[in-house]
Amino acid sequence: MLDGLFKPRSVAIIGASNNPLSIGHIVIQNLVDHNFRGPIYPINPKSNCIKSFKAYPSISDVPDEIDLVNISIKNTLVPIVLEECGKKGVKFAIVHTAGFKEVGEKGRELEKQIVEIAHKHGMRIYGPNSQGIQNSDPEVSVYANFTFVPQIPGNISIVAQSGGVGETFKLQLYNIGKGTRMYSSFGNEADVTMNEIIDYYGQDEDTKVIMTHIETLKDPAGFLEVASRVTKKKPILALKTGRTSEGVAAVASHTGSLIEQDTLADAIFEKSGVLRFHDQQEMIEAAIAFSDQPIPKSDKIVIVTNTGGPAIIAVDECISRGLQLAELSPDTGKALGELLFSEAIVSNPVDVIATAGAKEYGGTVELLLKDPNIDSLILNFVTPPFVDCEAVARKLGEIGSTADKPIVCIILTIEEKFGKVIRLIRESGVPVFDFPESASKALAAMIKYGQVLQREEPEYIKYDCDTAKAKDIIARHSGSGKFLPQADVFDLLGCYGIPIAKVVRVENKDEHKKAAQKLTYPLVLKVDSEDVVHKSDAGGVILDIEDESALLKAFDEMAGKFAQYKPAFIVQEQLTDGREVIIGSKASEGVAPMVMFGLGGVFVETLKDVQFRLAPLSRQDADNMITAIKGYPILKGTRGEKPADIDKLAEVLIRISQLAGDFPEIEEMDLNPVFAFEEGKGVAVVDARLKILGK
Amino acid sequence: MLDGLFKPRSVAIIGASNNPLSIGHIVIQNLVDHNFRGPIYPINPKSNCIKSFKAYPSISDVPDEIDLVNISIKNTLVPIVLEECGKKGVKFAIVHTAGFKEVGEKGRELEKQIVEIAHKHGMRIYGPNSQGIQNSDPEVSVYANFTFVPQIPGNISIVAQSGGVGETFKLQLYNIGKGTRMYSSFGNEADVTMNEIIDYYGQDEDTKVIMTHIETLKDPAGFLEVASRVTKKKPILALKTGRTSEGVAAVASHTGSLIEQDTLADAIFEKSGVLRFHDQQEMIEAAIAFSDQPIPKSDKIVIVTNTGGPAIIAVDECISRGLQLAELSPDTGKALGELLFSEAIVSNPVDVIATAGAKEYGGTVELLLKDPNIDSLILNFVTPPFVDCEAVARKLGEIGSTADKPIVCIILTIEEKFGKVIRLIRESGVPVFDFPESASKALAAMIKYGQVLQREEPEYIKYDCDTAKAKDIIARHSGSGKFLPQADVFDLLGCYGIPIAKVVRVENKDEHKKAAQKLTYPLVLKVDSEDVVHKSDAGGVILDIEDESALLKAFDEMAGKFAQYKPAFIVQEQLTDGREVIIGSKASEGVAPMVMFGLGGVFVETLKDVQFRLAPLSRQDADNMITAIKGYPILKGTRGEKPADIDKLAEVLIRISQLAGDFPEIEEMDLNPVFAFEEGKGVAVVDARLKILGK
Repeated sequence: MLDGLFKPRSVAIIGASNNPLSIGHIVIQNLVDHNFRGPIYPINPKSNCIKSFKAYPSISDVPDEIDLVNISIKNTLVPIVLEECGKKGVKFAIVHTAGFKEVGEKGRELEKQIVEIAHKHGMRIYGPNSQGIQNSDPEVSVYANFTFVPQIPGNISIVAQSGGVGETFKLQLYNIGKGTRMYSSFGNEADVTMNEIIDYYGQDEDTKVIMTHIETLKDPAGFLEVASRVTKKKPILALKTGRTSEGVAAVASHTGSLIEQDTLADAIFEKSGVLRFHDQQEMIEAAIAFSDQPIPKSDKIVIVTNTGGPAIIAVDECISRGLQLAELSPDTGKALGELLFSEAIVSNPVDVIATAGAKEYGGTVELLLKDPNIDSLILNFVTPPFVDCEAVARKLGEIGSTADKPIVCIILTIEEKFGKVIRLIRESGVPVFDFPESASKALAAMIKYGQVLQREEPEYIKYDCDTAKAKDIIARHSGSGKFLPQADVFDLLGCYGIPIAKVVRVENKDEHKKAAQKLTYPLVLKVDSEDVVHKSDAGGVILDIEDESALLKAFDEMAGKFAQYKPAFIVQEQLTDGREVIIGSKASEGVAPMVMFGLGGVFVETLKDVQFRLAPLSRQDADNMITAIKGYPILKGTRGEKPADIDKLAEVLIRISQLAGDFPEIEEMDLNPVFAFEEGKGVAVVDARLKILGK
Repeated sequence: MLDGLFKPRSVAIIGASNNPLSIGHIVIQNLVDHNFRGPIYPINPKSNCIKSFKAYPSISDVPDEIDLVNISIKNTLVPIVLEECGKKGVKFAIVHTAGFKEVGEKGRELEKQIVEIAHKHGMRIYGPNSQGIQNSDPEVSVYANFTFVPQIPGNISIVAQSGGVGETFKLQLYNIGKGTRMYSSFGNEADVTMNEIIDYYGQDEDTKVIMTHIETLKDPAGFLEVASRVTKKKPILALKTGRTSEGVAAVASHTGSLIEQDTLADAIFEKSGVLRFHDQQEMIEAAIAFSDQPIPKSDKIVIVTNTGGPAIIAVDECISRGLQLAELSPDTGKALGELLFSEAIVSNPVDVIATAGAKEYGGTVELLLKDPNIDSLILNFVTPPFVDCEAVARKLGEIGSTADKPIVCIILTIEEKFGKVIRLIRESGVPVFDFPESASKALAAMIKYGQVLQREEPEYIKYDCDTAKAKDIIARHSGSGKFLPQADVFDLLGCYGIPIAKVVRVENKDEHKKAAQKLTYPLVLKVDSEDVVHKSDAGGVILDIEDESALLKAFDEMAGKFAQYKPAFIVQEQLTDGREVIIGSKASEGVAPMVMFGLGGVFVETLKDVQFRLAPLSRQDADNMITAIKGYPILKGTRGEKPADIDKLAEVLIRISQLAGDFPEIEEMDLNPVFAFEEGKGVAVVDARLKILGK
C-alpha cells in the first residue's frame, strides 16, 4: 500500500532551507501553496525557523508521527538520516538527491545500502534521484515535489520515469485548465517501483485514466501482470521512449538501466491492453478525451461540421486510423433534411453549413446521438462572424453534459474574442481541440481502448507433450550457450507435437541405406554439427537428390567439405508446394519469451514483415499474429490459389509458445523454413536451430 | 500580375450593409480595423451612409478609380453588378457569394457567365464562393476578407483552398504572435487560380515561406511549372487533403471538383520540390521555423538539453525522420568538458544538466555553433526553479539573433511564471515549441528543403527512337479505348529500344515451325487477343514447352480454349534466372503521365511496394525510384547474390517515360513481368499490356 506516500498525514523536509533556490525550500513552498492538509516539519540542524515553520535539528526531535520525508541533502549523508528516519518510524522517504546508480559502481553501492537501511526499519525508499509525488485529492492536497506546474484537481494520474516528460504532461494539461489526480516521477526506482504505483492508481477510484512514461521496464513481468489487471478497469496510456537505436543509447546513458528492446515493450503492451503512443501531445490529448468522455461502444463515428475543409481532414485522419464513418439511419437522414438549410449536406460528414445556428447545429447533434448506427461524434465548429456562436456553444454544452456517447470537439476560433465559446463547451465535459487531427486521434485511442475492453477472454490451449523426454534433451545441453545438434532439435520439436519433414539421422555414409529405406526420394542431405550453424551458407545442404547414387555422391562431397568437424548427417524428404514461413522464439530477461511469426525468405530478411507476441500464446494471439503480417494475403491465397493451412500454423505457434514457456533455458529457436501446405494438409518444419542459454 | 488584387489602391464593397452580421459589413470593419491605406467605398442603393462612410447607390457613382470590389449580394444579381464594375474599369472582383459551380449545373452556367462578363472588360474574378484576400504589407494593409483572425505583419504567405483550413493556419500563427504576409482563400477558382497566386507569392520579396492547402489541383501541369520555379527561391509547404478514398469522396461533395489521385499529387510535389504535410499543426510549426531560421546545410544535427527524457524523444523523432546525430569534433568535446559540470554528458545529445546557468547553457550553444561537424541545433530547456532562467533565455536570445546555423528550441515551462523566458527567445527569431517532437519535425522539414535546394540539375536523356513507326502503330488504334494486340505492344516497345524476350507472332498452329526455327527451347506459348486481357488468369499462357511435340500439343489446347476469339499466338523463349520487376505508365488528366516501378508478383499485388514519378524521368528520378522501393535489397542482391542490372533497369524506365510522354494517347502501360538479369546482362520484357485512350 502506498497510502503513506500519496496520502501522508505529515511531511518532514530533510534539507529544508531558507535559500529559495534549494529543493528543500521549493518543496515546502509547493506544499504550502497547495495547502497541504497535514503538518509540515522542516529539518535543519542550523536554523530553528524555515519559512515561518519551526525547524527541528533532527527528525527524531519532531514531536509527531511522520508518514513521509523529502530528502535533498548530499548523497553520502543520506544513509545517516535514513537510519534516523527508520528509528522514528517514518513510512516513506522521497530521496531527491542524485549521485546513486546513475553515476556508476560507487553510487550503485550507496543505493543498495540505503534500501537495506530502509527495509531494516520497514520503511520504503522512493527514488533516489527522483522528483517526488503529488496528490490533488482535496483531503490530502500534497505537492511533495520541487517542480513548478500548479496542481489542480482532476482524474488523470501520471507516473513518469523522466521528470521532464512528466512535467510536460502536467504542464500541457494545466495550460487548458485540466486537472490531474496523482503525479509521480520516481527516479532510480531503487525500492518503490513503477508497477506498484500503477497498481495503486488502478485501485484509486478517482483516477479515471493513467498516463505513463517509460524508458526501461525494470520488471517487465510485473508490469504485464499489473497492467493486465488495471486495463480491465481503466485505460493506461504509455509513452515508451528510446524507440530508435540512437534513442536507446541515449536512454542508457541517461538512466544507467539495461537496454530493453522496443519490440518486447510492444508485445507486453499488446498483451496487457496498454495503449502505446509515440508522441507526447497525442497522448496528452487522448488522456483529455478519456478523462471526460465515456468509452465508445464501436468504431462507428459521425463527423459534424459547419465548414468543409477541416471535416475532410478529420475523415482522412479517422479512416487512416481504422475508424468507420457510420451510415446515418434513414430516420436520422430524414429528420436532418427537415431541420437543416437546403445547402446543408446530409451524409457523413454532416455539413450544417456556416449559417447554422444553435437550433440547426444543436438539433443535428441531438438527432445523431439518438441514431443507433452511431457510437461517437466529432464536432467541428468554426465561429462564423454572422452567427450567435455563444448560443451554439451553450446548446452543445447542454447536450454534451448529458450525452451517453463520446463527443470530441474542434473549435476554430480566436480565444480573445470567442473564449467563452470554448469555455462553455469545455466546462460541459466535452474536450475541445484545436485541430481535427487531434480530435480524431484522441477518439481513435478511445475506440482502441473500447476494443481492449471487448476482447474475448483469451483461450489458452495446453497440448499434451512428452515433457519428460524434452527435459532430458534440454538437460544434456544445459548451460552450453550453444546451438543444439539438429537431430536433438527435431526430437525436441517432436516431443511437442510439432510436425517435421521426415528425417533420419545417420552418423556417416555407411548408414545411408538406413535412411533411404525409410524415406522417399527426392531427398535432402544436411550436415549436422554444432560447428556449422548457417548450413546453407556454408554449403552444408544438398537438395534434389533423386536416387541412391546421387545420395552417395552427396555424402562424399559433404564428408570432404566438413571433415574437420566430424559431423553427423540428416537425410530428409524434400518437400515442395508449401508456402514458406518462419516461426521462432526468443527469451527475454525478466518476462516470458516472445514468439515470432513471418513469411520466409525476403519477407523476413528484407521487409522485416514479422510479428512478435509474448508467450503463452492464446488461440486469438496466434490467429492475430498470422493475420497481422503484411504478406497475409499470400497465406490466404492470391489469384485463385487455395489458402494455406492457417489453422495448423496457429496450432504450431501455440505449441512453440508452450515449448518456449516450459524451458526458459531456450535462448532462441528459429524454425526456418516451415512449409505451410494447402488447407487441411498441415505444415512441416524443414529446418530448425535452437540455442540454449549459457551459464 | 495580381497587384490590383493584393495591393489595391481603393476598395468598393458591393453589398455593404449596416447589419453587423452581414459579410458586407464585416469586410468594411476588417478593412477599417486594419487601417487600409486606400479609400473604402460602400455600395448600397438604399442607404447613403454605412459605418460612417458615404455610400453610393452604384459603383458607377463612385468618383474615383476602383482597383478591387468585394461582392456579397445574391448570386443571380452578380452578373448585373459585374457588368457595371467592368464598365467602371474595376480590375479585380472578389466574389464572396456562393451558389455557383458547387450547387450544380445552373450554378456552373452562372459561373461561366460571370467570368465571360469580367473578361469582356479586362476584369478578373476572384472566387466565387470565396473568403477573400489579405496583405499585411504596411504600405497596403488590406483585409478584404470576412474572417476573424487579426492580421499582423510577417513573412509567411498562405493560399488555402478551404477557408476553414486557411483560417486555422492564420489562427495558430496569430496565437503565438507570429505574423503573416499575404493570405488568400480563393473558393471556386473560376478565374484567378491558385497557381497564379503561388507565382505571385513567389515573386514577393517579403514572402519567405508559402503555405498552401489543396483539395484538388485544377491545373496540375501549371502547378508543376510554377511550383518548380518557386521552390528554387523559397519553400512551398503543402497540405493536400482527401488522402483516403472516403476523404476524396468528401472533397468531391465539398467542392464539386474532379477527383485527383493522391499518388499524382505526391509525384507532382516530388518533382517540383514541394514539401508535403499530412498534419496541419506539423505544417504550421515547420512554417514558423522556415520563417525565422536559415536553411540547414546538411542533416547533421545536435541536441542540447538540461533534462534527459525530452532529449531522448527528440533523438527518436529525428532519427526516425532520417536526420543524423552529428559527432562532436574533438575540440568541441574538450571545450565542453572544461565548461560544464562534471555530471554533464558531453556527447550528442549534450546534457548540460538542470543546474546549468547562462554561462554553461549559452557557452555550450556557442561552442556547438562553431563546430564544423554540426549544421543545426535543437535546444531543449526546462526552467528549473533553482536557476536564473531569464539569464539563460537572454543569453540564448543573443546567440540566436546572430547565429548562422538554424536553431529550434523547446521550452518546458509555465507561461504565467516564465513567459518572459519564452518571449526573450522567440523575439530573437529562434522558434519556440512546446514539444521535442514538434521542434524535431520542423527541423526535419527544413533539412528536407535544404536537400531540395541541393538537388543536382536533373539529367534528361533523350534516346533515339523510331518514332515514325511508333506513330503508325498508335495511329492504327487511335481512340479505340482498348488494349493493343501483344505483337503491336512488343513492336512499339521495340521502337523505343526496350529489350523484349525473343518472340515470334504466329496466326495459328500451322505456322509453328516459323517460330520454332527462330527460337530456342524451352518456349512459352501465349494467346494474343484483345479479348483476353488477363492471359495468365484465363489459362492463356503455357510454360515449359521443351520440344516440338509439346509445342503442337500446346497449340491444340489453346485453340480449343479460345476458339471463340479467333486469336493469334505469341511464341516466346522462356527466360529464367531474372529477378521479376514491373514497369508501367499511367496517363493523368492535365499533366504528364506517371511512370511506375516495383518488384513483380506479391510485391506489387500484396505489398503495394511501388514507386511513381512524373514523366519525363531524369536519370536521378529513375535511380531514385529503384532505390526507393522497400524490396530494393532484393535487386541489390541478398546473401551474396550478384546485383541485378540496375543500370539497365533505369534506362528502360527512362525509355518508357519517353514513350509515354511522346504519346499521351497511351492510357496505361503494364510491363509485367520484366526480368532483370545480373549486372551487365540487361533486362527483358516478358509480357506487356498497353491500352489506348477512348475517344
